[in-house]
Amino acid sequence: MQIARVIGTVVATQKHRKFEGAKLLLVQPLNLDDTPRGVALLAVDGVGAGVKEKVLIVLEGRAAGEALGKKAAPVDAAVVGIVDRVDVVMA
Amino acid sequence: MQIARVIGTVVATQKHRKFEGAKLLLVQPLNLDDTPRGVALLAVDGVGAGVKEKVLIVLEGRAAGEALGKKAAPVDAAVVGIVDRVDVVMA
Amino acid sequence: MQIARVIGTVVATQKHRKFEGAKLLLVQPLNLDDTPRGVALLAVDGVGAGVKEKVLIVLEGRAAGEALGKKAAPVDAAVVGIVDRVDVVMA
Amino acid sequence: MQIARVIGTVVATQKHRKFEGAKLLLVQPLNLDDTPRGVALLAVDGVGAGVKEKVLIVLEGRAAGEALGKKAAPVDAAVVGIVDRVDVVMA
Amino acid sequence: MQIARVIGTVVATQKHRKFEGAKLLLVQPLNLDDTPRGVALLAVDGVGAGVKEKVLIVLEGRAAGEALGKKAAPVDAAVVGIVDRVDVVMA
Repeated sequence: MQIARVIGTVVATQKHRKFEGAKLLLVQPLNLDDTPRGVALLAVDGVGAGVKEKVLIVLEGRAAGEALGKKAAPVDAAVVGIVDRVDVVMA
Repeated sequence: MQIARVIGTVVATQKHRKFEGAKLLLVQPLNLDDTPRGVALLAVDGVGAGVKEKVLIVLEGRAAGEALGKKAAPVDAAVVGIVDRVDVVMA
Repeated sequence: MQIARVIGTVVATQKHRKFEGAKLLLVQPLNLDDTPRGVALLAVDGVGAGVKEKVLIVLEGRAAGEALGKKAAPVDAAVVGIVDRVDVVMA
Repeated sequence: MQIARVIGTVVATQKHRKFEGAKLLLVQPLNLDDTPRGVALLAVDGVGAGVKEKVLIVLEGRAAGEALGKKAAPVDAAVVGIVDRVDVVMA
Repeated sequence: MQIARVIGTVVATQKHRKFEGAKLLLVQPLNLDDTPRGVALLAVDGVGAGVKEKVLIVLEGRAAGEALGKKAAPVDAAVVGIVDRVDVVMA
């Protein structure tokens, strides 16, 4: 899993039927010091996250489908938690 | 998922039987400012997308197979939506 | 999926029993202008491809296992089609 | 699998219900000489590992879900062992 | 699949119960000219390979679990063959 920031949303009215009701979030993966890491990507929302929130994302199809609660959904990334605190003990 | 642009098609008459009827699209992943990101790849069409359209792609086998509606299909990427609008709130 | 060129073969007599009968091809992924892209890799043959042919490869275990027709095969890449033509409309 | 060092923990009270009870560890992948390799990531704990320990991690959803003992869990990385010794015979 | 050289072993006495009996090998992926490619990683042994041998590895969880003969094993890489010969016809 990675830590990311929700930075936007995507609207796609014509989409695969298994996506019905799914919210698509644009998320930016972060480094431990909260600077951006790599490029932004799209993830389905599995926890009711909002823009600007720091979230926990999974980057794998099976896991993302589970997050959406639809086993056969054609998704490969999902927001699965909202991050409260990151404790780095040694780095 | 990633945002991409359909930039072409691929014809492969001799192919695995599970591909019968599947349309193969050449898609170019995009950055948020619509510039190309990385190299073009091939994806099966799961929503009836056409060349030049901005689409939503999944890059994972299980997810792509679901998009094609064939669980056991030997595919690893699929177009699963047509993008109407991307709203970047913070970047 | 990606486009690749078959550039050789690999012989491994001592291998996992689920590979029995599988042909192992050495494939070089290609860019759209047919120049090599990244490094060569090994893929099981799912369509009867030969050396020098331009092929369609899947890079994912589930998909590759399906291509081999053996669901439980320990493979992660397969040749699933022979490319006849690539039409790039816009790039 | 990769060798990594547990360098911290992450607290996410609002998360997908399948995560209930799972401990989230911040792990830093290591090179063979124990220098950091790439960026830190999050993994669920499957063996009771603690901060500063050298561990074995899997980076794949199905495998990570198995480590958590929950097949349908939306996870993509897990700590599956504590490393006692690495013997490099040739490098 | 990739070609790699077995360069060592890893001992992890405290590990996930599904690993019981599995041998953990340290493998170095190779280029076609046998020079190292990228960094070494850990793979479970599915064919009885020894240190210094040139092997065939799969890098994907489902495939690796099959190699171990345990579908639900938390593994993401496995040695599935011992390479006898690589024939590069064109490069």
